[in-house]
Amino acid sequence: MSDITLVPIGRIHTPWQTLADCPHNVRQSEQTATIELYPQYAAGLTALKAREIDLLYWFDQAPRDVLESINPHDQQLKGVFAMRSPHRPNPIALARVEVLAIEGNRLTVSALDCLDGTLLLDIKPAY
Amino acid sequence: MSDITLVPIGRIHTPWQTLADCPHNVRQSEQTATIELYPQYAAGLTALKAREIDLLYWFDQAPRDVLESINPHDQQLKGVFAMRSPHRPNPIALARVEVLAIEGNRLTVSALDCLDGTLLLDIKPAY
Repeated sequence: MSDITLVPIGRIHTPWQTLADCPHNVRQSEQTATIELYPQYAAGLTALKAREIDLLYWFDQAPRDVLESINPHDQQLKGVFAMRSPHRPNPIALARVEVLAIEGNRLTVSALDCLDGTLLLDIKPAY
Repeated sequence: MSDITLVPIGRIHTPWQTLADCPHNVRQSEQTATIELYPQYAAGLTALKAREIDLLYWFDQAPRDVLESINPHDQQLKGVFAMRSPHRPNPIALARVEVLAIEGNRLTVSALDCLDGTLLLDIKPAY
């Protein structure tokens, strides 16, 4: 079986410089984030008019060999597929955000929980 | 920069054996699908009680070098990030499905649009 390899298509800019800075509940944050598509992918934004988008991005610091852990919210043992924690075999994060502005290859969106500089993998219109 | 490499964690079983069979609008289908986690990842399902889950899976037959195309729905030129088509730089599919049953490492879920045997990348509880 051939490997599955992803290509980063851009970066996410947030106010969070360390993991300790990152908010656990992004809905509590009023900070916006900026999505910077690498210029060679900017044509992929043509006619993007969705009010909300789903972002896929990469948690490069997440351990990938964890399958169960104690959920901090309720202190119960849970499998990684029963949680949205970044610790999972394929640490792809998924967040639905509101599009506030699009200028060229940059999108301003509602708050995100990830580190400044996080690698972007995909943008999909929400519906 | 190091490559981003994914590991398949299981397979999705559907009634669709060819791309021509796959429904364009899965909401029109009453067929269920079965998610088979490889046994070494089954512990990741511990305490999964979500009524709905987000599935990430891999469209291995999708071209990855397309950035714009004519949207078949409205005949307009659109960027790939303005559509949910499988044709995109990182052809990761995202679908929210209803969990109908869980038995060991197998989940029965509501209808999916993908080919039988599609590689599964992640399961996240919806909220």
